[in-house]
Formats: sequence, C-alpha cells, structure tokens
Amino acid sequence: MLGAHVEGAGPDGSHAGREAVTDVLAVLAYGELVAFERMAHDAQYAPTLADKDALAGMAVVEFGHYRALRARLAERGADVEEAMAPFVAAVDAFHAGTQPKSWLESVVKAYVGDGIGSDFYRVVSRVLPEPERSLVVDVLDDAGQSVFAVAKVRAAVAADPTLAGRLALWARRIVGEALAQAQRVAVDRDALARVVAGEGVADFAALLGDLTTAHAERMAALGLRA
Amino acid sequence: MLGAHVEGAGPDGSHAGREAVTDVLAVLAYGELVAFERMAHDAQYAPTLADKDALAGMAVVEFGHYRALRARLAERGADVEEAMAPFVAAVDAFHAGTQPKSWLESVVKAYVGDGIGSDFYRVVSRVLPEPERSLVVDVLDDAGQSVFAVAKVRAAVAADPTLAGRLALWARRIVGEALAQAQRVAVDRDALARVVAGEGVADFAALLGDLTTAHAERMAALGLRA
Repeated sequence: MLGAHVEGAGPDGSHAGREAVTDVLAVLAYGELVAFERMAHDAQYAPTLADKDALAGMAVVEFGHYRALRARLAERGADVEEAMAPFVAAVDAFHAGTQPKSWLESVVKAYVGDGIGSDFYRVVSRVLPEPERSLVVDVLDDAGQSVFAVAKVRAAVAADPTLAGRLALWARRIVGEALAQAQRVAVDRDALARVVAGEGVADFAALLGDLTTAHAERMAALGLRA
Repeated sequence: MLGAHVEGAGPDGSHAGREAVTDVLAVLAYGELVAFERMAHDAQYAPTLADKDALAGMAVVEFGHYRALRARLAERGADVEEAMAPFVAAVDAFHAGTQPKSWLESVVKAYVGDGIGSDFYRVVSRVLPEPERSLVVDVLDDAGQSVFAVAKVRAAVAADPTLAGRLALWARRIVGEALAQAQRVAVDRDALARVVAGEGVADFAALLGDLTTAHAERMAALGLRA
C-alpha cells in the first residue's frame, strides 16, 4: 500500500486519518523548532567565526521549515500549540539525552540526528495527501549539514585519529536515543503509529532496516565505524 | 557637521574613514550574530510555545541582519572574520555580564539592550556613506521586540508587582554593561572612536544624554522606573 493516502482512509470511517496528518506535521514542526534552538545554542562553541556562521545558518533554515509547517497546521484549522504539545516530552528527552559536549559532537549530531529523522519522515511522507506531502519533502531538504559535517569530522579525525572511536560511540548514542523516543511517540499516539505501522509503510522491521542502512552510509561518509 | 560622510573625510588624508566604515559594519554584524545566538538560547526558557516562537522569530530576524552586513563587508573587500575579530571580546563580555536568569529578564534584555544599541548605531549611521547608511538603518528596524516586551512585562508586573523593582535593576545593569563595553571599543578602535567623537556626531556628552532619554522612555513603556 505504498503511496496510499492517509486522510479519510481510516477503515472504520473515523477521523484517524486526519489526526495522523496533523500529528506528522506537528511532531515535525516541533522537532524543527527545537533543532533550531539546539543548533543555535551549539553555534556558540564553534572554533571559528566561519564555523559559527555555518551552524547558525543551518539553524535558521530549520526555523524556516518550522514556520512553514506551523503555517500549514494553522491553515488546516489546527491549534498549533495544542497539536505540538503531545510531542514536546519525547523531542525534549531526545535532546536532553544527546547534549553535545564539544563542537565536533554538535556537528556529528546535526548530521546524524537530522539524517535519521529525515529518513524516517521521508518514508512517512509517502502516505500523506497533498499539499502536506510536498511540504514535508521540502522541509526534509538538507540544510547543508552533510557537506559541512563530513568535511569537519574528516579533518578532525585526520588530525587526531583517537577521536574516531569516541565520535562513533556518540553517533550510536544519538541513533539509540532517536529510536527510543520514536518508540515512545508510537506508543502514545495511536493515529501516528497506524500511519507508520499499518497504512502503507511496509512493515516496521523493514523500516528499521532501511534507517539502519542509511545511517551506516552516513557513518561511512564521516569515516567512522557505524 | 551632522550628516557629513566619513569615507575619505580624514583630515590627515589617511584611510581612517574607510576603516571606520568597516568597523561600524563589523561591530554591528558581530553584535547581530551574537544577539541571534543569545535570543535563540533564551527561547528555550519561554513559558509557552507561542512565546518560544516569538523570541526565536526575533532571533532569526537578527540573523538576517547579520548576513546582510556580512555580505556588504565582503562586497567592500573586507575579510569578514578579520573585520569582526576586534569586537568579539567586548560584545561577548556584554553578554557574559548580562546573562538572563529568567524568561522575563530575557524579554527585558531583548528590548532594552537592542534598544540602546539601535539608538547608538542610528546616530553613527548619519555619518556613513551610501549604501552603508541605508543598510545600517534597515537592520536597526525593530524585530518586534518592543510590542512583545511591553505586553509581556506589563502583564507580569500586573500579576506580581514585586517584579518591578528587580526588573528595573536588571535594565540598569544592561545599560551599564552596554556603555562600559562601548567605552572599551572606543578606547581600542581609533577609527571608530573618531566617527563617534569627532566627525559629526555632535559631542559625546550630548550623545549620552540622548541615549539616556530614549532609555527612560523605554522603561516608561515597560511600566518600570528608569
């Protein structure tokens, strides 16, 4: 059922489809808002003004995504704050569990954390109606993290090979925390869980496999072991 | 000599005028970059998602100003990082000395700190050549702080009148720290000091008087004693 639309598709004729679309937009919106905050915060640890400019610029791109999702939620008649509220605890817990302790950890988080999030939402987007589907695909566009992170991490590890092990461990922690919080959201939000688990996104095990493969490719790009 | 242009106006035929223009753009650019960072950071303490949205949105406007100033510096052939470097210590010291300890302190800082900075640069802008003059005036546009801060502070003080004294003290500290750091920059940067003190901005005492008057008006708008 890949590509099936969620909206109005609930087999019991309920409004679960519509709720699910709101949930996807809302969790993504809140995620982008907090990603903006965390990246802007981490920018203060940049070793040079050029690095600060780069990370702050990516943060601002995330804020633009948040505002676009927020606008769409409002157009759909949702109370934006109310729609985001169910996802605050999980998103905040993800960031509380993955607070970078160095500039390089910030860079790895921006790349690995956003990467796995984007992969996940890209799969979910396939079951969204338009215009939500295009909006979600648009906001998943890489804000420049990939090229920036790969260059910074490779240069740092080349200068100090002992960093490789620690950064690989750090990346694993980010992925672990992301999956733990996604699981938490799935348990709490029935409508959203049905989109992921039942309404067209193949099966959950296959999804996890795809996310893991894509994560391994990012780690290889960084020159780190997955 | 109000309205006289700095560029090429050095009485000794030196390049002090050109340096002064670069200094003004650079200190303002770095100030906007750090204002962005601090506001984005403070947004995490917002009591509601709507407040977070508001403060983060103002931060992003500041980042846009920074990018515009940066672009102009680059067009003038300046090395942007090098141009900003002399102002890093003073701007960072201002923020280190005025770290908000509550959401309301953040709001007061965004209004009072940006307000006195804007007043100061608006005076300086009168002696800039075009297109720098228009650019500086544009980036001094209020990003929405005034209306937001006045509403939030008035509501909070109405609910808890004991806040008024503490917030008034806080605002005085912000102004004191801003003037102390401006003084530090003036001592270090000859070219910039000449713009302010000698090349058309009336006299320094009159400037201080104007800044103080405008600050008192902002405090009155907040319902606080200056």
